[in-house]
Amino acid sequence: MKPILEPVRDLAHLAHVELLTPKPEESLVFFRDILGLTEVSRHGQSVFLRGWGDQQLYSLKLTESKQAGLGHAAFRTISQGALERRANAITNSGYGDGWIDGDYGHGKAFRFTSPDGHPLEIFYEADPYKVSSDLKPSLKNQPQKYAAKGASVTGLDHINLFSSNVDADSSFLQNQLGFRLSEVAVTDEGKQTTAWLHVTNKSYDLAISLDKTGAKGRFHHLAYKVESLEMVLRAADVFIDNEIFIEASPSKHVAGQTMFVYVYEPGGNRVEVCAGGFLILSPDWETITWTQAERSRGLAWTNPLPSTFHTYGTPELD
Amino acid sequence: MKPILEPVRDLAHLAHVELLTPKPEESLVFFRDILGLTEVSRHGQSVFLRGWGDQQLYSLKLTESKQAGLGHAAFRTISQGALERRANAITNSGYGDGWIDGDYGHGKAFRFTSPDGHPLEIFYEADPYKVSSDLKPSLKNQPQKYAAKGASVTGLDHINLFSSNVDADSSFLQNQLGFRLSEVAVTDEGKQTTAWLHVTNKSYDLAISLDKTGAKGRFHHLAYKVESLEMVLRAADVFIDNEIFIEASPSKHVAGQTMFVYVYEPGGNRVEVCAGGFLILSPDWETITWTQAERSRGLAWTNPLPSTFHTYGTPELD
Amino acid sequence: MKPILEPVRDLAHLAHVELLTPKPEESLVFFRDILGLTEVSRHGQSVFLRGWGDQQLYSLKLTESKQAGLGHAAFRTISQGALERRANAITNSGYGDGWIDGDYGHGKAFRFTSPDGHPLEIFYEADPYKVSSDLKPSLKNQPQKYAAKGASVTGLDHINLFSSNVDADSSFLQNQLGFRLSEVAVTDEGKQTTAWLHVTNKSYDLAISLDKTGAKGRFHHLAYKVESLEMVLRAADVFIDNEIFIEASPSKHVAGQTMFVYVYEPGGNRVEVCAGGFLILSPDWETITWTQAERSRGLAWTNPLPSTFHTYGTPELD
Amino acid sequence: MKPILEPVRDLAHLAHVELLTPKPEESLVFFRDILGLTEVSRHGQSVFLRGWGDQQLYSLKLTESKQAGLGHAAFRTISQGALERRANAITNSGYGDGWIDGDYGHGKAFRFTSPDGHPLEIFYEADPYKVSSDLKPSLKNQPQKYAAKGASVTGLDHINLFSSNVDADSSFLQNQLGFRLSEVAVTDEGKQTTAWLHVTNKSYDLAISLDKTGAKGRFHHLAYKVESLEMVLRAADVFIDNEIFIEASPSKHVAGQTMFVYVYEPGGNRVEVCAGGFLILSPDWETITWTQAERSRGLAWTNPLPSTFHTYGTPELD
Repeated sequence: MKPILEPVRDLAHLAHVELLTPKPEESLVFFRDILGLTEVSRHGQSVFLRGWGDQQLYSLKLTESKQAGLGHAAFRTISQGALERRANAITNSGYGDGWIDGDYGHGKAFRFTSPDGHPLEIFYEADPYKVSSDLKPSLKNQPQKYAAKGASVTGLDHINLFSSNVDADSSFLQNQLGFRLSEVAVTDEGKQTTAWLHVTNKSYDLAISLDKTGAKGRFHHLAYKVESLEMVLRAADVFIDNEIFIEASPSKHVAGQTMFVYVYEPGGNRVEVCAGGFLILSPDWETITWTQAERSRGLAWTNPLPSTFHTYGTPELD
Repeated sequence: MKPILEPVRDLAHLAHVELLTPKPEESLVFFRDILGLTEVSRHGQSVFLRGWGDQQLYSLKLTESKQAGLGHAAFRTISQGALERRANAITNSGYGDGWIDGDYGHGKAFRFTSPDGHPLEIFYEADPYKVSSDLKPSLKNQPQKYAAKGASVTGLDHINLFSSNVDADSSFLQNQLGFRLSEVAVTDEGKQTTAWLHVTNKSYDLAISLDKTGAKGRFHHLAYKVESLEMVLRAADVFIDNEIFIEASPSKHVAGQTMFVYVYEPGGNRVEVCAGGFLILSPDWETITWTQAERSRGLAWTNPLPSTFHTYGTPELD
Repeated sequence: MKPILEPVRDLAHLAHVELLTPKPEESLVFFRDILGLTEVSRHGQSVFLRGWGDQQLYSLKLTESKQAGLGHAAFRTISQGALERRANAITNSGYGDGWIDGDYGHGKAFRFTSPDGHPLEIFYEADPYKVSSDLKPSLKNQPQKYAAKGASVTGLDHINLFSSNVDADSSFLQNQLGFRLSEVAVTDEGKQTTAWLHVTNKSYDLAISLDKTGAKGRFHHLAYKVESLEMVLRAADVFIDNEIFIEASPSKHVAGQTMFVYVYEPGGNRVEVCAGGFLILSPDWETITWTQAERSRGLAWTNPLPSTFHTYGTPELD
Repeated sequence: MKPILEPVRDLAHLAHVELLTPKPEESLVFFRDILGLTEVSRHGQSVFLRGWGDQQLYSLKLTESKQAGLGHAAFRTISQGALERRANAITNSGYGDGWIDGDYGHGKAFRFTSPDGHPLEIFYEADPYKVSSDLKPSLKNQPQKYAAKGASVTGLDHINLFSSNVDADSSFLQNQLGFRLSEVAVTDEGKQTTAWLHVTNKSYDLAISLDKTGAKGRFHHLAYKVESLEMVLRAADVFIDNEIFIEASPSKHVAGQTMFVYVYEPGGNRVEVCAGGFLILSPDWETITWTQAERSRGLAWTNPLPSTFHTYGTPELD
């Protein structure tokens, strides 16, 4: 029983994800009108969007590109000191790409690439969101008026990386960034097939899943949160009415016990709408290890995930 | 914009509350059969209970006493080092009462008294909960089978202290224990009337409310969490069917935006069942300050709380 | 134990309500953007609107007028024969006003006035709703795509008349139209203060409340239904964000056990968003009678309704 | 467009189902402790149970038997006259079995067998439920205290017959009993594969599904209702914690748009817990016909039902 909150928790939360899309107009309609995000800015080939409950300026940077996939995922540190501590650690690990001056809405950021090839970033300095008068909420502890449209998603919840080497990515994120391993699925040979990691009290902020195609560095999905299990069901209703492809209909995960629905946005990226689950409050939470036999029982209610869940990622393979 | 997660977060979470009751049998029926807690042990005049989702061994110590009120509230630290760090700080502040050897289920603890007189405790070493076979859950990342009885509360959420001097208690908890101030209500003269404080990502783990009677060191309420807003409504249905006095029927708080229902358990202590609300993820969350004018607008949906909310506490005044 | 489904059930359901508003533009914004209704047509000073789940062409006719209030409420009969049967009965009772040729979307209708003076109507021939391609739902047993905007109300649920003589109106509706009395509140002197009546299996389709001002023939409220208790709470969130006056925040009625929130639309008419409650399936359901003492206990969770609930109606008194 | 509420609606509602079980003790534990029904009586090899919201004395007669399956299903008529009208019609159709003196809780009943061989019954005279003081609800328009245990099901919702000839059973029920056809699934050859029929305003009270094994007169499932979509999910949680086999995890039907979870009770009979869906209020509702192509799209959210749904029934085939 080892205290896992020591040493210092340097990462505060998942700040934003840059998604690449070959169908920028249709992807924008999906995220803005069907998920219910608000557009905050446009620069070059990118549109910046936020959920009504996001505490950061934006949580999605949607960028036109030849192929779908992950532009980058960015975590915010708890301080400038924490940013520098982690940049040094990553640099020393050999995975650092170096500093950039910043991007719309945030300052200096350190870029790096996970062992399997995922483009990642950390930063601290950030511009706060200033709500415009037409979106002003009734209660000022809420960043923005409730977005009563589409799936009405609250804000960014987590990202899931698709990896040919879950062990390597998982160790890197734990050792260099201070992620803690909440739950893990392992093969009978002891190889990780999914790792769920957290920096907040949420049961996970980032997951890494085994890409059974063997491809490297692909994107599995990002997840936006809604306020209740029922709103996940409602999101599925909104998806069918708007002809969005549902890969996995609403059901409940074993890990984290979150309710989910998975769709492909028009650009091809997998998107989850999720709710529920538990917080990890105990300082000596012991990683839950799921065996192959346990995983073969299916999801929480014993139904299976579709097989594409283990092979489909972006960019798509030829 | 000052990083509030620096320095080290030493407290992990609210671990348990000891409630005093002059009607131990009826209080036990309330917590076990109506709220849905599980009894884990009995020692002397005390019964120890837990919610199905509590990550600690127990969250409630129910102790027979002449008068209702708070026995003590205990926070768990993230490590033994953190415990010692905080014990030293409190001792230096002059509010320390000293070490005790421990209690059922946990080791050495440091006792202290808030400026207004509330008995508090911190500890680190704790016995884990070992689920018995009849309560074994289907999913092993859940501590215990879902308690499908009564209000089916998940676990302890927060405690609320009643204080004649909110400013003093709030400062003490921030300075000596590392609590951060999420939201605060102030009079036009700048005196705090309610302070909401957090150590986890929850919007509050502890609140302090002004006792308008001027009494010192009383207990306002403890709150057990349920999984959805709907389950708060269901709890109210269970309360009326079991003739539990509802002081404030289900509605929504402004601070934290949590859904609530408030009742008096048979021993006289106020108990809340709550759900919803938001997490504080941003490392530079700025304390939300509610003015007297803003507070006069009522709860989130503009209805008022009953006036007893500001005067009734335990022990009751003669 | 008297079979209450004999004789023939002639009325099928509440078909539409015509509301008068002195602020037509703002009322339209309320019903369309905040409640989430769809506009289907405009004629003269009237706009016709429907909920996504309404099985009739429209459920609301919103008409510009000097004063707020009820234009008329219309029930659809189960057949042309039923229409004629009821028109004859009403004519014989002396309350008939005669036939009109119809209105947008429906054929010949019989107009009449309740004893207290409420303008009412029955008809059978009706144009079905033909959904346009942009509103086509995924599932063809649903009239229209789910309206994922504002409070996303499903459809018209019931109407509540404000009456100086509940007994007279209640008897008239039972005797001449075949309504059955589900529940009734009576004074110690045996005078009805509220009567809840049904023609469908819903616990009520129409209610009559005592207007304590003594005014005659006023309108109390109409109610749109949402799919869950949680969506009533969500509606209240939408109302505060859009500065709609909430008269009674979300809570639960004793009669019918429905969840409610009451607001005044900008034109001044009271509108309810409701959910839940039970169906009356038993053929020998005995009317539930609530005494004055029972009513004084408050709503289901013991909180009171605001006193304006018994005095405010439209048109407003000078 | 033909008025379907004419002539007289003679059946009031599905009153009770007698289920046969080879494991009476375990089946009783399932229905009482896991679904949350209340035992009202025992006679011979049968236990009589009710949901907290059932308006009749009991909704389930659980009878020990060598094999699982349907003992009988009983509908209550709206009056004694209606009972006699329907008994005559059935007798004339050649499917009548004759009168029985009654059973626990109800009077004289007419027994008959559907074309495919399902044992059915109609009756009118019934003993009301008299709640005992320990189960007395707070609100007297509710039959019984909310059963805060297990899945907390409200009451019996519908029954589903498994038939080798859906067309024959569907026609019989429409012509001889006055059921109306809400929705129907047909093959490209025009043969019915599922028929959903109603006598109340619910979208169905009885369904008939094609038994792909070709067996005759088997039982498909009965359904108990819960108050919300969320409670269906909760029921599934209760099922996995109690090792009840889930055949189809929570999802949403196309027909009726109800949320469901399907399990096998320990005796082998399929049981559904359901919620949601719509009421049929329109007097000229036109039967919704689903083609083979439309049905091949899967459930509401496009996921499939397990293939056993079309072949498993009780009694099981050798």
